Formats: sequence, C-alpha cells, structure tokens
Amino acid sequence: MVLRGPHIWGHDGPADVLIRDGIVAEVGGTFDSSDCEVVDLSGQLLIPSLVEAHCHLDKTLYGGPWVPHSAGDTLADRIANDRDRRRELGIPDIDRIVALLERMSSFGTTHVRTHTDVDPDVGLLGIEVVEAAAERLGDRMVVQQVAFPQHGIVTNPGTEELLADAATAGVRAIGGIDPAGMDRDPVRHLDVVFGLAERFGLDLDIHLHDGGTLGAWELELIADRTAALSMGGRVAVSHAYAFGDLNDHQQDLLVDRLAHAGVAIVTGAVYSFPVPPVKKLRAAGVTVACGHDGIRDLWGPYGSGDMLERAMHLAYRSTFRSDPDIELALEAATIGGRRLLGLDPRGVEVGAPADLVAIDAGTAAEAVVTHPDHRTVIRAGRALPQRPIDVTGVEDDA
Amino acid sequence: MVLRGPHIWGHDGPADVLIRDGIVAEVGGTFDSSDCEVVDLSGQLLIPSLVEAHCHLDKTLYGGPWVPHSAGDTLADRIANDRDRRRELGIPDIDRIVALLERMSSFGTTHVRTHTDVDPDVGLLGIEVVEAAAERLGDRMVVQQVAFPQHGIVTNPGTEELLADAATAGVRAIGGIDPAGMDRDPVRHLDVVFGLAERFGLDLDIHLHDGGTLGAWELELIADRTAALSMGGRVAVSHAYAFGDLNDHQQDLLVDRLAHAGVAIVTGAVYSFPVPPVKKLRAAGVTVACGHDGIRDLWGPYGSGDMLERAMHLAYRSTFRSDPDIELALEAATIGGRRLLGLDPRGVEVGAPADLVAIDAGTAAEAVVTHPDHRTVIRAGRALPQRPIDVTGVEDDA
Repeated sequence: MVLRGPHIWGHDGPADVLIRDGIVAEVGGTFDSSDCEVVDLSGQLLIPSLVEAHCHLDKTLYGGPWVPHSAGDTLADRIANDRDRRRELGIPDIDRIVALLERMSSFGTTHVRTHTDVDPDVGLLGIEVVEAAAERLGDRMVVQQVAFPQHGIVTNPGTEELLADAATAGVRAIGGIDPAGMDRDPVRHLDVVFGLAERFGLDLDIHLHDGGTLGAWELELIADRTAALSMGGRVAVSHAYAFGDLNDHQQDLLVDRLAHAGVAIVTGAVYSFPVPPVKKLRAAGVTVACGHDGIRDLWGPYGSGDMLERAMHLAYRSTFRSDPDIELALEAATIGGRRLLGLDPRGVEVGAPADLVAIDAGTAAEAVVTHPDHRTVIRAGRALPQRPIDVTGVEDDA
Repeated sequence: MVLRGPHIWGHDGPADVLIRDGIVAEVGGTFDSSDCEVVDLSGQLLIPSLVEAHCHLDKTLYGGPWVPHSAGDTLADRIANDRDRRRELGIPDIDRIVALLERMSSFGTTHVRTHTDVDPDVGLLGIEVVEAAAERLGDRMVVQQVAFPQHGIVTNPGTEELLADAATAGVRAIGGIDPAGMDRDPVRHLDVVFGLAERFGLDLDIHLHDGGTLGAWELELIADRTAALSMGGRVAVSHAYAFGDLNDHQQDLLVDRLAHAGVAIVTGAVYSFPVPPVKKLRAAGVTVACGHDGIRDLWGPYGSGDMLERAMHLAYRSTFRSDPDIELALEAATIGGRRLLGLDPRGVEVGAPADLVAIDAGTAAEAVVTHPDHRTVIRAGRALPQRPIDVTGVEDDA
C-alpha cells in the first residue's frame, strides 16, 4: 500500500509512504507503486496511531441512552453508587464496551490499556467481558487489561487472591490504588502489588489520587521500590495529582527520582485535578502517556473516546501554547502510550509497525487543537473502513 | 413557523413550538399550522441560542492558515509579541473576523460581547473593523463591543481619551484590566473606567487576572464602587481568578458582596486558570456568563467558536457531574449571557425572542458533554441556512 502525499509529523514537506506486510517499508523518495493500493492523503497530516493509556472499559455506558450522574460528591459516595448501580445497569455490558472500542478505532486508536475492576463482588467477570469485547474487534484493536482493585486490597479481603487469579487469566498488568489514602496501609499495599507483578512477570500501574506531601511520599516509595527491584520500565503511576501541590524544587527532585527508577506517569488532565509537569517529566526522560480515565460511566458522564481531543485537554491544561509544547501532548497520546504498553516506540519510520492515522490538519499542533472528526486509520498496514461517526455516542449502525 | 416535536430544555416531554413575528408565540398544546413553515425537530433538544459573552474578535486569526504561537511565557512577552506581530499579520482582519462570526453563527450563537483593543497604537481601527465585520452578517448576529484598554490606562497615556472617543463611536461598554497588577494604580484605574461608564451611560467589564489577596481586594473595590454608584446590573468582572486562591468562607463573603452590588462574573474556564465558583455565585443570584476569551490569536491557538463546547469546559473544570450542575454551565452560555448583555433573559417561553438552537441530544447535560456539530439555528424567528462546518477553521465556502 502507498500513502500518497501526506505531511508526516516530524518530517519536512509531504512524502509518500510505502507499507508492506504491516510495516512502514519506505518514507519519501521514489518507489514503484504500480501494484499497490494507493490511498490519497495529500493535504493530510500523518501521525502514529493513537494509544489510550488509561481507561475503564468495563464500567462504560457508552453508546446507550444518557444516564444522569447519580453519585454524591465524595469518593465514598462514588464507590457506593458504583457498587449499587452496576448490577441495575448491567455493567459490565459487552455491547457498550464494543461500541466504545469501535468509536475509539474510528478516531485512530489502535492500542488500549484498560483498568478492569477485580474484587469479591464482581470477581473476574469484568476481565472476561472486556476480553470478549476486544475479540469482537479482531486485530483492529489491541486491548491490554490491568487487574484493578478499585475498592482496595488491604481493606477488601479476598481481592489479593482474585488479582492472582486474574494474573493467570491473561491480564498484562496489576493495578494499585491510593496505597495510603484509600487502602490505609501503603507499605502492605505496595508489598502486594509489587509482589504480584514480580511473581507473574506483569507490569504495574498504580492510581494515585492522594495529594500533597502524602501523595509525594507515596511516589517516593514507588520509585524507590521500583529501583530496588530493577523493575524500571514496567511500573507506572496514573494521575499523580500530588505534583500539583509541590513547588518547583520539590517537583524537580521527584521527577529525577522517577526518571532514575524508570517509573512512567499516565495522565488524562481530567476535570480540574492537577496535571503532572509533562515538560519536566519528558525533559528528564520519564515516559508520559495519556488516557481518558472513565468514559461515560457511573463515575462521570464525560469522555468521547477520541485521544486527539484528550491530547488537547492535556495540552490546554498544561498551558501549552507553542507548537513544540503542544506536540508533547500528542507524543503522550501516541509514542508515550507505545512506551508504556511495551510496544515499538517509533513513529512514522522505516521498519516501524504501520499503525497510523491521517488527519485533516496542517501541523501536529493544529491536529491537537482542532481534532477534526474525519480520519483515515491504518492498522497493521490495512486501511480500516471509514464509519459514520455520531457524536451523541450512539453508533449509527449499532 | 412551527418547530415540530423537539424536547425543550426545562419542559417535560416533546412539544411543538409556534413562532410568529420573531417571537415564541406558543409552546405545547395544539395550534393551527396549516399555513406555517414546519421544521421537524423530533428527537432534538431545543434550547435558547448561545451567547458568547467574552471574546476578542479583533485579534483573531481564525479561518486562515495555522500560525504557530510565537510569544514567550510572561504577560509582558505576550503583550510585546502582540504589538510586534499584529501589523505583520494584518490584524485586525475583517475576513478573519467574518469567518469566525460565521462559524459562531453556525454553532447557534446569536449574540456576542467582544473586547476590542483601543490604544494610541491601534486607535479606533479595531472598533471600526469589528463593526464592519458584524454588518456583513446582517441580523444573523448581534455584536456588542467593549472598548478595551489591553495595554493599560494609567500606564498608557492617551488611552483614556481614546476610550472616550470609542464611547461616542457606538460601543456598548468600557473595559478595564487588572487595575493593580497591570495598571499599577487601582483606584485611579477604577476612577477612569467607572467615570467613563457613568458619563456615557455604558456598561463596564473589567478583566481581572490578578490572583490571591490582591485580586480579591480589587473585587471588593469593584463591588463597593458599583453599589455606591447604583450601577448594579451594568458591571461585570471577567476571569476573576482570585476566587481560586480563597477558602470557602472567603469565597462566600465575596460572593455575597458581588451579589448585593449587582456585579456579574464572566468566565471561560480557560487553560488551567482557576474557575470562579459558579454554583455559589448562581445560588447567591450573581449573573454568570461564559465566553472563549481569545480564539485562535497571538495570545493562544485554542478555541473553536462553539459556545456549547465552551460550556463543556466550564462544566468540566467545575467538576460538575450531575445533570443539574452541568446545566448551570449551559445556563451561563445562554441565559447568563442574555442577562449580561441586557437582553430578554427568558428561555424557550411564550413571548421570548425566537433565538433558538436545536441539538441532536436527549438532555441538556448530554448536549453540553457531547456538543455535536450538527445544529438547527433559529435567529429572530427564521431558520438559518445550514452551512458545512469544517473544523479545521477554514470555511468551506470562504
């Protein structure tokens, strides 16, 4: 296949791209395209496909009718509401999950890391339903599951054993959540999640909403344990709101500690919660990835599934105005996600997998700012059929 | 004209709407529609048209090619960059302004308050160009201009006289900007802007970025002077970032003071700057309106012109999750703007002007969250022709 004439993010001027056997075979120059399928992308911007690095597919109500938010304002309210209503609403719902994955795919997302609840109430049902939903999309979408103890581990007996069961059931990573603020025993919590990750050779992704000195101290614990266990490159902290409460010097020290340990940071720039210092983190070499967190679920009604729009939120909340700054957000939504998920981190380069998106924009910064709906998506070297996109969240052909 | 079958924001169930002579003549019930133009809006949500309450039309680069952001990170950098580059880029540019107004209109905005730079460098050129641009849209769009001293008054000799000239040239309001932090003499700054507003019978809209105790004290000065001059209902403070640095009790005291004085608050929920406490302000009866601030200009590359998307940002940054909370953001983008601009503040009610938008959404909260592009816009009782919307910012038929 030949992609004819797109501008390529990071390259000067338009160039043709030859794709062979699912790989980017040539970029620029002249090559024989006589037997090739040709896709005209002149005037379009070609970027690596989008990676959703943090979502909760198992919880989504996407594609169904509007469900007004019913939880109170505290975390305890939201947890109680989640437990009470998920059975009533039939969550996890394979059709809702498939609808969301289809939508993500139409926007150019090819890889997803999703955090699936595992607890004595729901057991491994979520893991099974998400896996079945992912299978329905075939090779259009790669879904990595994290076994996620939403309701605690130390404080929720039975969860640790279920996480171990999930580990043998094909998940890619073990999750953790607020070892101090939520689970009340940070060292024991980290003992469990690092222990499971080591024992089963899995990645680790800890959701850290704890703010201030508490959250910063937990980030230190996680960095130090990652370094001690030589697990650099396999551990991520999602959210990391505590960065917002630190001064510049404190941020710098913590960024260095994470960089040396090899801990990645995942952010969605959600609501008004603090956004980690993306520029500092990238300058220090920390992997930064981006994801929606919840999409249209009992925890909140927002989220479109479009990672280019999510990159806009990340850039906007980071007060990124210049093109190079805005491109840091796009990097998080593409290359950063590849790094987090253990994929080939190269962009549109010879030898890289041909997972690509073409967007009607002149520059990468413009693509982030305007995130136009119409896109050409190439997955594993094949152009995906273009689907009507209904922004109300209900698939036209569902 | 009959609007057939929409759900109407705030009403139960779908109802027909009869429009006669630019006014909502009947809502619900049965009426003779034999001689009427009928617009089928079944399955759509009907809301009052959108009001852009704070933008800078004169500065926009909208509809032209992408211009990478060129200013440094400080306010001084941005001011210097603005002065240096606006001539080079031909700002103000009537075609850019018309392109943006057309786009706003296609999204369902019918009324705009725009802050136009007035200073010894640009004189009244911006005022004239914006007025000429607005005329090109005829009665589809009502544009109210604020004569805005972007580069100071006390610190920028000649500006006060030009504001007075602008006052006689048809502007609707006088602007002010950071009386302390920027113009260095808060009492003298307020003397000038309140004085001009009183003398010419104009409204007043002060941009207050100053944070912390300084900004809060300026809000007190503005409230007290508004009360002393009985100018309640004619004075607004835009941005009011200082609210973000106050504790709950301090916020409550300040909200009361603004409510009693009749000072409105305008917010865009831009970047990561603090968002005023919308729920508290509305509970106290303070008018809250919403606007983009800059749209695709030398101050920043963001902004689409869509006030429904802007309401999403306001709701999202306010961490509004429930339907009634999210509707506060929509209220700011519709009814709140009407109050600010001195228009009939009624919604879809008998006797109210027939400025309406129909959106493909089931509920008002869903309309804010999803803000779908396709809309039916009714202005002064007439359905506007639907235009192709190109989200890259370049009008298809320009």
